[in-house]
Amino acid sequence: MKYPELVDVVEVGPRDGLQLEAFVPTERKLELINLLSQTGLSRIEATTFAPPKAVPPFRDAAEVMAGITRNTAVKYMALAPNAVGAQRALATNVDVLSFVLSASESHNQANVRMSVAESMRRFEAAAKMARAAGVPVRAYISTAFGCPFEGDVPVERLVRIAKTYEDLGASEVTVCDTTGMANPRQVDNVMVEVMNALRPGTAVALHFHDTRAAGMANVLAAMQVGVTTFDASIGGLGGCPFAPGATGNIATEDLVHLLHEMGIETGVDLDKLVPCARLVRELVGHEVPSHILKAGKRCDLFDFAAWRAQHL
Amino acid sequence: MKYPELVDVVEVGPRDGLQLEAFVPTERKLELINLLSQTGLSRIEATTFAPPKAVPPFRDAAEVMAGITRNTAVKYMALAPNAVGAQRALATNVDVLSFVLSASESHNQANVRMSVAESMRRFEAAAKMARAAGVPVRAYISTAFGCPFEGDVPVERLVRIAKTYEDLGASEVTVCDTTGMANPRQVDNVMVEVMNALRPGTAVALHFHDTRAAGMANVLAAMQVGVTTFDASIGGLGGCPFAPGATGNIATEDLVHLLHEMGIETGVDLDKLVPCARLVRELVGHEVPSHILKAGKRCDLFDFAAWRAQHL
Repeated sequence: MKYPELVDVVEVGPRDGLQLEAFVPTERKLELINLLSQTGLSRIEATTFAPPKAVPPFRDAAEVMAGITRNTAVKYMALAPNAVGAQRALATNVDVLSFVLSASESHNQANVRMSVAESMRRFEAAAKMARAAGVPVRAYISTAFGCPFEGDVPVERLVRIAKTYEDLGASEVTVCDTTGMANPRQVDNVMVEVMNALRPGTAVALHFHDTRAAGMANVLAAMQVGVTTFDASIGGLGGCPFAPGATGNIATEDLVHLLHEMGIETGVDLDKLVPCARLVRELVGHEVPSHILKAGKRCDLFDFAAWRAQHL
Repeated sequence: MKYPELVDVVEVGPRDGLQLEAFVPTERKLELINLLSQTGLSRIEATTFAPPKAVPPFRDAAEVMAGITRNTAVKYMALAPNAVGAQRALATNVDVLSFVLSASESHNQANVRMSVAESMRRFEAAAKMARAAGVPVRAYISTAFGCPFEGDVPVERLVRIAKTYEDLGASEVTVCDTTGMANPRQVDNVMVEVMNALRPGTAVALHFHDTRAAGMANVLAAMQVGVTTFDASIGGLGGCPFAPGATGNIATEDLVHLLHEMGIETGVDLDKLVPCARLVRELVGHEVPSHILKAGKRCDLFDFAAWRAQHL
């Protein structure tokens, strides 16, 4: 089986991971982002410029962007769900503007309270502003592998959205399994179609949740068809309001551990990532789905002589 | 990517899942085994005939075997770690005798308190007894993908153990990632070697734990090299004393859900499996790692109109 030599891991925890949590104080968010900045990660989604009243956990988006102790090797991204959000984001020193819409109408309504067509018009305006500001745009397609209200989403719809995103100026299209409905065979089929439809210069990324235990299997299938960029969330935080209590995004430390075990480079120092997972668990004040945080790395071996002395 | 059309899922929860738990009363164990017997599963490992003093959760092994309400479509397996255990197991109406030894010396010492060579001698005696009784033997190789004390395990050692098992009469060799140290590339390499070494008539199975989030990715890699039999534990129960609190075996309901989503048949009725997972959670009295138990099936859709009326 062929796998890439290098995979790019995009940290979305400070945004996707914290969105279902109670407000985390700005200085603690900055502590997390600054710690993540020292791990070798090349991109961190730091916050979202969603309407503060609709999404109170991120009412401090501008303060967060302004307060980061910048590592010049890291690109700091911020999400904007509409043109107002884009304007607010571009008023900060954001490196990459990210934009989101859902492939399904009902999920887009539930998430950003407008139609998909209306979201795309907002994206067009936001992309224009970003271009004027010289800021590249990363475009998410939510519920790409299934919608918690509508079920299956036709591949043609994804392809159409991805191409529209590209035509309007997105430099990267991120296909998202927002509520953990993807399976490896589907990932294979969908990504071949999407990548064939886009121009070679447009980057493609995948964003998996582990809601139904398929997260890492989906990463494996995606690497086999040539995808080399994956979003992940520190501690495995995140999730979906439509599956309360379910597992969230794939955990950054679990993904990096798996890739390194397979001999795939990420540029990330796992030993620096684990303390970030520990910190995020402290910040949210409850257990997180991370595996590596609980089990340790594969190479963390036990001392048999000591075990024997105690047990045999 | 090529996947099998049919996968055989072997339920090991009543044995592997319950071994780290407090004693579950015999009648409750029987309730679980009887409920599992109605799901379409073809094999259930019901108990282990380990020395009752060393492994108190299974001190009722004989009562369990005698008390099952038998479904003639199900083979009921029992584990025996030595010849005495095999004798006790064969005195019951067991359908398949399973045997375990570790690929690494220190883990075998920790698990069954003897050398690997000594375990193999016990296996030889046990296999002889089983043959005399007309009972087929399933042979596990523990710590095949890494030992929590010793680290890497040479593939040659696995191949040697697998071939010895086969020569001594095992009809199936189950390669076990006892403490969740396998990765998909390794699964690919190891299973190609093991399957090439065994005779065509010897069945091969895999037994994964999800300790470090790689469980389902390992299943995927294994299917791609032709493995079609996987152990799993209801609720994802099980685990490893060397990673306390870590995730256990891959959950039967998560595996069956993923396979069905991929269009792979298992013969198991997922809707009947979920109540078994709920029961096992009740029996052990704590949360279990199952994803499907928390998130529901992919096709369990939400009612958008109702959601909208409440939220928009």
